[in-house]
Amino acid sequence: MRIVRFKAGGKAGYGVLESTWVVEYSGTPFAGFRRGRRRYPLRQVVLLVPVVPSKIIAIGLNYREHALELGLPIPDQPIISLKPVSALIGPDDPIVYPPQSRRVDHEAELAIVMKRRCRSVSAARAREYVLGYACFNDVTARDLEAREGPSARAKAFDTFCPIGPCIATDVDPSALTIETYVNGELRQASNTKELIFPVEDVVAHVSQVMTLLPGDVIATGTPPGVGPLQPGDRVEVRIEGIGSLKNTVVRL
Amino acid sequence: MRIVRFKAGGKAGYGVLESTWVVEYSGTPFAGFRRGRRRYPLRQVVLLVPVVPSKIIAIGLNYREHALELGLPIPDQPIISLKPVSALIGPDDPIVYPPQSRRVDHEAELAIVMKRRCRSVSAARAREYVLGYACFNDVTARDLEAREGPSARAKAFDTFCPIGPCIATDVDPSALTIETYVNGELRQASNTKELIFPVEDVVAHVSQVMTLLPGDVIATGTPPGVGPLQPGDRVEVRIEGIGSLKNTVVRL
Repeated sequence: MRIVRFKAGGKAGYGVLESTWVVEYSGTPFAGFRRGRRRYPLRQVVLLVPVVPSKIIAIGLNYREHALELGLPIPDQPIISLKPVSALIGPDDPIVYPPQSRRVDHEAELAIVMKRRCRSVSAARAREYVLGYACFNDVTARDLEAREGPSARAKAFDTFCPIGPCIATDVDPSALTIETYVNGELRQASNTKELIFPVEDVVAHVSQVMTLLPGDVIATGTPPGVGPLQPGDRVEVRIEGIGSLKNTVVRL
Repeated sequence: MRIVRFKAGGKAGYGVLESTWVVEYSGTPFAGFRRGRRRYPLRQVVLLVPVVPSKIIAIGLNYREHALELGLPIPDQPIISLKPVSALIGPDDPIVYPPQSRRVDHEAELAIVMKRRCRSVSAARAREYVLGYACFNDVTARDLEAREGPSARAKAFDTFCPIGPCIATDVDPSALTIETYVNGELRQASNTKELIFPVEDVVAHVSQVMTLLPGDVIATGTPPGVGPLQPGDRVEVRIEGIGSLKNTVVRL
């Protein structure tokens, strides 16, 4: 099942992608999720952020080659950072290049969306608490990150958290190709089997720190190949079995 | 006005402290806030987290002497970190000492609570967007912070974000005494006039990065004197004109 949130005819709600259609659902993916009677051609709806989380966790340096390209040591446990929910945008929403930065990078990531409240879950049982997976772009002001070290600012700007197009519930996250295209040109290409800490370890680790709630998002880290975006660029995160998340960079 | 959220007789809602009473209010401090008919003796209610924010921002190293005690440079702009809303606790709730840490510190801070949505506000107009001020304890696993650098984990554990007891709307935040007591013994003592970046500058700076929503919390940084807490300790953050926020440290 590929779950979306969408807007059609002035109303917003949940739905499920079925080939070129969006089928309306009532309830939420967390309670009372039921197929409705109406369906809409995908082209006639606006896809929204597929989930509204209470928090967004982003794991750092979770692909060996990405740590090496930044000249940083391979971590011995998942590194946790947080992004504010105010940064969320959906498919086709613009990424706004902030005036404070001169180097804004794409970071394609597989995002985990939680299904059930969990606290201190084991890796063995972690997958039971996961609803599904989405494409995620952990947009980062690389110059501010380099200069400001522990500051969360570099990843916290409004529009720096594209997620979508859907939450895919039936994919096995252990071996999915993950790619970034900028203006159609391949920039990042890897596979989630290269994750240092796979999905189960990430959920277990984070849940030992904080209670995870339904809809909470954990982005699992970016593969090598991160690079700059310019105003006017079209950036696409593509993950096997999930889909393609496209956003255009603008300067206001 | 000193705004609280409280529970009495199985119901939770907003109220206002008036001497030893809590007067019930309908609506929220952001819309339709109206005095109700009932009042309760303060001793007979349970005070809750006074506000439910969409995000919690904590400013780092905003008192000169605190930066010096950590051996860190004086910042030239506010340093932004984020705490997850899952870490929030209210007055008298227990702070849980996590097994991952051997050094958990108190950090008394003045918290700003936002009243209105704002984005890129000037320092001159920042106060118009503020609802009021609360006591805040930016509980930090100091050993993890030192070891993990940019990781958000050290400040993100469940229960690491006590806030309360109220939101004081009529205080001038520019010169308030701020103190921490551990088991009745004074540990931190300063005044918000020592802030490197005062309230107006902090709100302006953060709003240039992210949209602030009603109820969002910005903690303004801790004065010198941070130090360890032990299971069994009673920690109190006291700020002039606001009140006292007390929590006990436990190990599960």
